[in-house]
Amino acid sequence: MPNLPESMELFRRASKVIPGGIYGHASPAAGLPGAFPYYAEKANGCRYWDVDGREYLDFMCGYGTISLGYGNPIVEEAASRQRKKGSVFNHPSAVMPELAEKLTELVDFADWAVFGKNGSDMTSWAIQVAREFTGRKKILKVQGAYHGVDPWCTPGSGGIIEEDVSHIHSFPWNDLDAIQTLIARHRGEIAGLILTPFHHPAFGDSQMPEKGFLPKVQKICNKEEILLILDDIRAGFRLAVGGSHTVFDFEPDLACYCKALGNGYNISATLGREHLRIAATKVFLTGSYWNDAVSMAASLACLGEIQASNLPAHLEKVGSLLINGLSRAASEYGFKMVFSGPPAMPFMRFQDETNFFKLQRFCALAANEGVFLHPHHNWFLSAAHDELAITQAIEAARRAFAKLSEEL
Amino acid sequence: MPNLPESMELFRRASKVIPGGIYGHASPAAGLPGAFPYYAEKANGCRYWDVDGREYLDFMCGYGTISLGYGNPIVEEAASRQRKKGSVFNHPSAVMPELAEKLTELVDFADWAVFGKNGSDMTSWAIQVAREFTGRKKILKVQGAYHGVDPWCTPGSGGIIEEDVSHIHSFPWNDLDAIQTLIARHRGEIAGLILTPFHHPAFGDSQMPEKGFLPKVQKICNKEEILLILDDIRAGFRLAVGGSHTVFDFEPDLACYCKALGNGYNISATLGREHLRIAATKVFLTGSYWNDAVSMAASLACLGEIQASNLPAHLEKVGSLLINGLSRAASEYGFKMVFSGPPAMPFMRFQDETNFFKLQRFCALAANEGVFLHPHHNWFLSAAHDELAITQAIEAARRAFAKLSEEL
Repeated sequence: MPNLPESMELFRRASKVIPGGIYGHASPAAGLPGAFPYYAEKANGCRYWDVDGREYLDFMCGYGTISLGYGNPIVEEAASRQRKKGSVFNHPSAVMPELAEKLTELVDFADWAVFGKNGSDMTSWAIQVAREFTGRKKILKVQGAYHGVDPWCTPGSGGIIEEDVSHIHSFPWNDLDAIQTLIARHRGEIAGLILTPFHHPAFGDSQMPEKGFLPKVQKICNKEEILLILDDIRAGFRLAVGGSHTVFDFEPDLACYCKALGNGYNISATLGREHLRIAATKVFLTGSYWNDAVSMAASLACLGEIQASNLPAHLEKVGSLLINGLSRAASEYGFKMVFSGPPAMPFMRFQDETNFFKLQRFCALAANEGVFLHPHHNWFLSAAHDELAITQAIEAARRAFAKLSEEL
Repeated sequence: MPNLPESMELFRRASKVIPGGIYGHASPAAGLPGAFPYYAEKANGCRYWDVDGREYLDFMCGYGTISLGYGNPIVEEAASRQRKKGSVFNHPSAVMPELAEKLTELVDFADWAVFGKNGSDMTSWAIQVAREFTGRKKILKVQGAYHGVDPWCTPGSGGIIEEDVSHIHSFPWNDLDAIQTLIARHRGEIAGLILTPFHHPAFGDSQMPEKGFLPKVQKICNKEEILLILDDIRAGFRLAVGGSHTVFDFEPDLACYCKALGNGYNISATLGREHLRIAATKVFLTGSYWNDAVSMAASLACLGEIQASNLPAHLEKVGSLLINGLSRAASEYGFKMVFSGPPAMPFMRFQDETNFFKLQRFCALAANEGVFLHPHHNWFLSAAHDELAITQAIEAARRAFAKLSEEL
C-alpha cells in the first residue's frame, strides 16, 4: 500500500497542536487511515495531488464544494475581478442584491434570499424562522439525516445537553405514517419539518423518495401549518438548475443551499417564500465576514455557469457512465455492486456485504491506482469530469477490482 | 446631507429579494440611514469608496476584520500563492498544522488550536467543550455581552425558545459578588464562564476590567472547576501579539479568535489547554469549507505581519493620536467627548448625552466630510492608519464639529 511520508509527517506535527490532528469530515478516521492521503497539495479540474506528489482522479470534489472543477477559470476570474476592489467592507457590495436576484430567479418558489458561511448557519437559522413564524417549538427531522454540526442536529454527542434536542423529533425516511403519528402526538406544537430531497446518510445506501412522498409531506405540512424546510445543501443545483424540489414535484417554504454555490468560495444561502419575509427579519443573522463580496461574485459566476452549461444534465451523464463502467469492471472479477442515490452523487457498495470491510479495501486499492472513491460517503461529480476522466477512473478501478479479487 | 442615489437604488432592489434589504451589523438601521452609505464599491489601505464614488477614511475596518489595511500586499500575496494551488480540497493542506503551530507559539497558554469560519462557530463550540469536559450544563456570561448569533447568545429574540437559554446565566461586568452569588446558587452545575477581555457592548461605553477582576475570575473558576472561556474575537491580536489575556494578567482555559486573524480572509479559531484536548476531540466540529487553505495561508501571513510590525503598539499609538486630536477639535467648539475602551478600538460619545442623538448627527456630518465614525459601536484602527490619515481624519472631524456647533 502507499507510502505517504509527507502526509504522515504533517499529521505527526498536526497531532501535537490540533486535537486529533485533523477533525471533522476530513479526519483520517472518517476515510481510510493509511490508505487515503491526509493532506492535499494542489488541485486542478477533476484531479488533485497529495503532499507526497501522488495524483488522484477525484470523485469527492471537496465534499461537494467544487461543482465546476477545481480552479474553474470563469469563477476564478469573477472572484479575481472583485478581489481587486475588496472582499469584506463595512457594507455589502452591489453583488449581494445581484446574487439574491439570481437565486430567486433560478428557484421558482423563492421570493427572497439571505446568505451565511456554513450549511449549519442556514439550517439553524431556518428552524429559528419556523419557530418565530409559528410561535411553536418542535421540529421534525429524518432519522440519521445530517443537517450540520449545531447542537440540535449534530451527529456527535459531545457537549450536547438534553435541552438542545428536547423539541427535535425524528421519523424514518419515506414513512408518512410516522410523520402523522408525531403530528397527532404534538398537534399545534410543530414549527417545522426539515428534510433533504433524498436521504443521503453516511455509512449507508442513499434512499430516493418514494413516488409522491415529498408532495404528500408538503400537503400535510400545509394542512398543519408546519413550515417545510428543504435542506438542499448537498444536492442543490446538482440535480436541477432550479433546485432539487423541482425533481420531486413539491415546494418547500424555506430551502438551504451551500455546497454547489461558489465552487469552493465560502458561501451558503437560505431562500424563502413571501409570507416568511417578516419572520426572517426578526431572526438576527450576521457574521464578521458575511458581506464578503468575493464569495458572492464567485457564486454569481458559478450559478451562471451551472445554468448556461446545464450542469445537472452533465453530472447525470458522467455519473451514469461512471456507475455503468464500475458495474461492468466489477462483474469482470465476479463482484456485484449496488449504486444508490442519483448518478450525479452516487453511493456505492458491494451487494453482498453490509460491514464495508471489502469496500474499504477496494477504495484503498483504488486510491493506490490513482482514483479517489469514498467508502462511507456519497461521491460527487463536477463539470470538469469528462468522458476521458471517467474512462481513466474505470480503468483504475478495474485494476483495483483485479487486485481485490487476487487478495480474496 | 449626502446624495446617495446608487446606494438607494441598490437598496431598493435588495429590499425586494432580501428581507430588510440588508441584515445584521451592516443594516442601515444599525448605522445611520440616509447618512452612511449602504453599499461599498472598493477599498484600499485605510480608505474605502461607496457605490456613489464618495471616499471615506475608515475607522471600522470591516467591523474589525481588516487588521492590516484593505488589500495588504503581504497577505494578498500569500493568499494568491495558495490560491494557485487550490483552496478547498478533500483534505487539509500543510498550512493547517503550520497555522496551529504559529497560534500556539504566539499564545502562551495554548497547547492546541481548531478552526472555524464564524466567531459564533467558535464560542458555541467552546461552551460545548466546557459541557463535555465538566459534565455540567450551565454557562455564565456577562450581561449585554455579544458572543455571536447562535440561539444561546444572540442579542435578538426572534425564534428563540426558553430551552435555548435555560442554562445561561448573566452577571454584570466587573461584579465578582454577582459571580459568587451565581456560583453559590448553582454550585457544581456550572460548566464554563465566558467573557471578553474588556466589555464592549454596542450602544454604550466600553468598560475596562477593574484591577484584579480578571485574575480573580480565573481564581474562582479554577477553584470551582469551571472552564474560563475568553471571547477574544473582537480584541484578539489588537491589544497584544500574545492575545488580550496577557494585557490583563490572567489565563483562560479556552480562547476564541476571529476578526484580526486573516485581514478579511474568512477564518476563526479556538485555542485551548492540554487538559481539554480529549474533550475537544469529542465535540464534533466541521463545515463544508473549513479546510480552505487560502484563508489559512492568509492568516499565517497576517499573524506574521502582526508580530513583525508589533501591530498592537501601532494601533495604540495611532488610536491615541486620534482620540487626542478629536478631543481637541471638539473642545474648540465647546464639546467634551468621552472615550472608552483601549485606544486601538475606542468608543466615543458626547459627555453630556446618553441618547446618541447628537453623536448620530456628528457622525452623519463626519461621514459627509469623508470620515467614517460609528455612533453605536467601537471603532477599529489598522496597520494602514498612519499619522497623515489620522491628521486628515481630525481635520474632517473638526469641520463636522464646526457644522454641528452651527446647527445647535
